[in-house]
Amino acid sequence: MKENYKNYVSTMRKIADIGHAIALLSWDKEVNMPVKGAPFRTQQVATLMGISHEMFLDPSFVNNLKTLEKNKKSLKFKERKNVEITIKHQNRSNKLSTDFVIRQSKAVSEGYHAWLKAREAKDYNIFKESFRTLIELKKEECELVGYKDHPYEALMDQFEPGAKVKDLDILFTDVKKQLVRFTKKIGTHKQVDDSFLKKKFPHQKQWDFGLDILKRIGYDFEAGRQDISPHPFTTNFAPTDVRVTTRVDERNFGSMTWSCIHEGGHALYEQGLPVSEYGLPSGKAVSLGIHESQSRLWENNVGRSLPFWEANIDLVKKYFKTNLKGVGAEKFFKAINKVHPSLIRVESDELYYHFHILIRYEIEKGLIDGTYSVDHLNEVWNAKYKEYLGVTVPNDLKGILQDIHWAYGSIGYFPTYSLGSFYAAQFYAKAKKDIKGLEKQIASGDNSQLLAWLREKVHKHGSTYTAAQLCKKITGEELNFKYFMSYAGTKYKSIYNM
Amino acid sequence: MKENYKNYVSTMRKIADIGHAIALLSWDKEVNMPVKGAPFRTQQVATLMGISHEMFLDPSFVNNLKTLEKNKKSLKFKERKNVEITIKHQNRSNKLSTDFVIRQSKAVSEGYHAWLKAREAKDYNIFKESFRTLIELKKEECELVGYKDHPYEALMDQFEPGAKVKDLDILFTDVKKQLVRFTKKIGTHKQVDDSFLKKKFPHQKQWDFGLDILKRIGYDFEAGRQDISPHPFTTNFAPTDVRVTTRVDERNFGSMTWSCIHEGGHALYEQGLPVSEYGLPSGKAVSLGIHESQSRLWENNVGRSLPFWEANIDLVKKYFKTNLKGVGAEKFFKAINKVHPSLIRVESDELYYHFHILIRYEIEKGLIDGTYSVDHLNEVWNAKYKEYLGVTVPNDLKGILQDIHWAYGSIGYFPTYSLGSFYAAQFYAKAKKDIKGLEKQIASGDNSQLLAWLREKVHKHGSTYTAAQLCKKITGEELNFKYFMSYAGTKYKSIYNM
Repeated sequence: MKENYKNYVSTMRKIADIGHAIALLSWDKEVNMPVKGAPFRTQQVATLMGISHEMFLDPSFVNNLKTLEKNKKSLKFKERKNVEITIKHQNRSNKLSTDFVIRQSKAVSEGYHAWLKAREAKDYNIFKESFRTLIELKKEECELVGYKDHPYEALMDQFEPGAKVKDLDILFTDVKKQLVRFTKKIGTHKQVDDSFLKKKFPHQKQWDFGLDILKRIGYDFEAGRQDISPHPFTTNFAPTDVRVTTRVDERNFGSMTWSCIHEGGHALYEQGLPVSEYGLPSGKAVSLGIHESQSRLWENNVGRSLPFWEANIDLVKKYFKTNLKGVGAEKFFKAINKVHPSLIRVESDELYYHFHILIRYEIEKGLIDGTYSVDHLNEVWNAKYKEYLGVTVPNDLKGILQDIHWAYGSIGYFPTYSLGSFYAAQFYAKAKKDIKGLEKQIASGDNSQLLAWLREKVHKHGSTYTAAQLCKKITGEELNFKYFMSYAGTKYKSIYNM
Repeated sequence: MKENYKNYVSTMRKIADIGHAIALLSWDKEVNMPVKGAPFRTQQVATLMGISHEMFLDPSFVNNLKTLEKNKKSLKFKERKNVEITIKHQNRSNKLSTDFVIRQSKAVSEGYHAWLKAREAKDYNIFKESFRTLIELKKEECELVGYKDHPYEALMDQFEPGAKVKDLDILFTDVKKQLVRFTKKIGTHKQVDDSFLKKKFPHQKQWDFGLDILKRIGYDFEAGRQDISPHPFTTNFAPTDVRVTTRVDERNFGSMTWSCIHEGGHALYEQGLPVSEYGLPSGKAVSLGIHESQSRLWENNVGRSLPFWEANIDLVKKYFKTNLKGVGAEKFFKAINKVHPSLIRVESDELYYHFHILIRYEIEKGLIDGTYSVDHLNEVWNAKYKEYLGVTVPNDLKGILQDIHWAYGSIGYFPTYSLGSFYAAQFYAKAKKDIKGLEKQIASGDNSQLLAWLREKVHKHGSTYTAAQLCKKITGEELNFKYFMSYAGTKYKSIYNM
């Protein structure tokens, strides 16, 4: 079996090499590419994807995996997991015919362009028919791929392997009940002052400050870099080259700063994946939920905490002396945590955020199981925003057209954002138990023990454990929403003097 | 045959897509990559090269080409040329066994590291044994690949298809005879003053000036960009995305400026290749000599001409007001064309430059045919520098170790630099005949007709004609050194008041 496993690894690494070349072609497209380069770039990516797909489904590779599976007793634990996960992915790919993949990719391309047009006109109806096609294809995908309980699980599985509608329904029922109550209560208290965050924060200073903050959380600039792109993202070409991007809005200090820390959190995960497992599931992030737990933990549990700003208030004031005159760590901490309902998901605070996700989850699930149709879906959207957030959506651009996900045919992705926050709270609670004086360390500017803990508990395992297994292994219990509520309770009570 | 040709084109485009992904991986390595990214990057490039190589030698692709060749009468002229050139490349690849390619790539890797060490110690002997291995492999390559008259031709053929030692010997005999006489004569005249070019030229201003100059020669920034890298180069991912790099030396104004125009000239060629011929020989540059003719034409015939600086003296003075106080177009023109023998090829003026190439040509040819051995080759080098340039080489770093080419196993490349200058002079002479008032246009800042002429005469043909055919087609005669001497004669007589 040794030779078989060696061959398996060798092909997986080649596939990873191709995947990382695609990642670079895509990163470059967002960061560097001149406008006229687009058509050939699209073609180059398609060619490499085709080659990778063929290699992954090559009969000799498939057969070798079957042999490994039959003889899995002679494999080590991690090796067995790698084989199992790879076979699972292969099975999924095999179930989607080339014809289906082409139809879907055509629908995505058309959907994306219709979405752009619809946004310009602020009119959902322009997107509707393309969206209908996309949803029909997604339903077809569910049937082709198969599922146990709910068709939506066939879609979620790509992003959060093993996620169940039943569990999410329970979770989001809790979210709704408890967060509605809590945000209402916050609403009865005096609002915090964040006016100084709306002053003009010059581009270059924000940029330099962002680099400093990334260094402070432990991002390794010898194994990465930051650039500007329209939408912040993290990508990697190996754990030794993990890049982040950000954007700068001179009138919104938070936009750059927390996207920087958020993407930095994703990047710390990627930089912490084991180099020796390159190309294998054991060298890859386990799920988007766990990925998001790493970005949110740094963004929110750390990056929006009082200790973190006790450590960094001097730094931020060094860059923005005038804007932050008379602002101490505590005032700063309160301002950056202002809770208020808003229309746009990516501009939301930590609490209302989950209503945004809840709405998308309910709609997606309903589209797939037939509860909702794409007809008048904007009205469904608007009604839910009224109900959960109490806000009136003025037009579709600020409503149903705000996110790119659906236009790209990404259905089943949104729940991972909330899962990420909840995992983050649970992990961070455990880290505080495990690391004595953690928040004192953070307040003194030392984040190294926290990072080491995450490396040891999360990063180094790659996908060897499922998200659920990992959570149990780290915290001793399953994902539990109470940790988020406990974290939020302590934090916002102090901010709103409740 | 239509279906066969279509299949041929389809595979060639895929191979081009892979090649351009490799080009991006390589560009990014020089321009952006964090240090720790190197090992995986090398592996990623190797994987893609392996895939491309396999695709190029795939039996069904080879057989399809054979069928096309047998039925070439039913192909159009350009199609036939594409098939012929592709078969030629395939034959070369087929003659080099995988074992040989691996041995050579290992030798190159070792050679490069030995060269770096030797440079540090300024001692050729540290490089010598690796170089011996490289040269032995090159000799083996010549025998494997085959040649008609001289083994060196088997190596030159990769860079300058069809180049003959016999022709180059005649050419370089002329070069030696006429340039020795001419540079001696110049040496008897009063040297020009270029002291103001050694003042401090700030980095950012040089950078901005470089972008302006690129725009002025017609470089399309919507189909390209400029970045900083240790060694300037041009790369492309399609004619719609052609990128240049440059470097800035604050104490050497010329370093950035003419490398900018030089790489810009290469880039104009790539941007002018026909998009419809993407991936095919008819969409690729014909030879390095012709490529170099485009860079040199812009760098020297245009970029170091009086008319060009009549058009741009105000621009350069806008950026460097103090440094260039009292300097007019003519004084500037004289300074940037100062002729003086030097040790380093890349710092040479336009005339002595060809002695640098001549020396390398003589040594390379001699190494391959056994006239020279790698033993004491630094002494051979130094003696030739004394003889042709009258300079004493103080150490190997400033002598035989100065260029990277040999360390990379590039033998047969150097002559293309001189060929480029000579083609440039001949093309430019014809352009002046064809375009009425060309130099007046240039003096008024309008380079568009010259660019259009090059697009029409050179760029649009790709590799459909050989370099020799192209030269005859454009100028009505074979490459003739007299055009270079005539250009140089007029230019330097005016500069040195001869």
